[in-house]
Amino acid sequence: MFSHEYFMKMALLEAEAAKDLQEVPIGCVIVMNERVIARGHNLTEQLNDVTAHAEMQAITSAANFIGGKYLKDCTMYVTLEPCVMCAGALAWSQISKVVIGARDEKRGFINKKLQLHPKTEIITGILENECSVLVKAFFKEKR
Amino acid sequence: MFSHEYFMKMALLEAEAAKDLQEVPIGCVIVMNERVIARGHNLTEQLNDVTAHAEMQAITSAANFIGGKYLKDCTMYVTLEPCVMCAGALAWSQISKVVIGARDEKRGFINKKLQLHPKTEIITGILENECSVLVKAFFKEKR
Repeated sequence: MFSHEYFMKMALLEAEAAKDLQEVPIGCVIVMNERVIARGHNLTEQLNDVTAHAEMQAITSAANFIGGKYLKDCTMYVTLEPCVMCAGALAWSQISKVVIGARDEKRGFINKKLQLHPKTEIITGILENECSVLVKAFFKEKR
Repeated sequence: MFSHEYFMKMALLEAEAAKDLQEVPIGCVIVMNERVIARGHNLTEQLNDVTAHAEMQAITSAANFIGGKYLKDCTMYVTLEPCVMCAGALAWSQISKVVIGARDEKRGFINKKLQLHPKTEIITGILENECSVLVKAFFKEKR
């Protein structure tokens, strides 16, 4: 039951919440022991703050839940490949696993040859199409 | 009067405030029209949050002051070269200028070949020794 797809669907619900607010539709959840301990969706416009990406909020929220700043036994499910800022934050967090929906060839961290923590496993391509369509449709409508 | 050294001294005061809290002593200020509009010092331990770097807090605070998320007419003075996360945030902010005290060869963004926004000017080596000594003394004492 608790497949990667299951939790990515929860991340997609977060992305939909961002979309409803006219935000770029990106969402994520952080899971520990098959339980969602933090959620986040992009709020850069609402909060007037370039740092208010889904991942940043979820990292802060998960650390708050755990009562410690390291997310060693946690997995992040995120609908779009994290940017440089979020990859840097994930590296500091020492998170165990990052599961990515769609790739972001231009702004994502992977093509920039950035490493997360050496112990962090990265999985890509979970519900890739659903995650990708959401972002592409948003920008198409904006133009 | 309003030299780079003047504002870097204010960033150093922020770094001292971090040190007083047993935090890694890094501080910054953001200046617009020769006026400090935001300050920040490292609070990762106090807040149990890897994202609570001096720069991240100051970027959020400056955007809040301005009432907009872009820091186009602003200069950040920071005692230590920003990490990947903070460099990513600075890139999103489109800040005009980043003035750096000491370099961080290992964890700083420059050696990782990361770019800030194309229009962002970067200046290094302002009060380099004072900025560097503060961090080095902190880690020496920790060991």
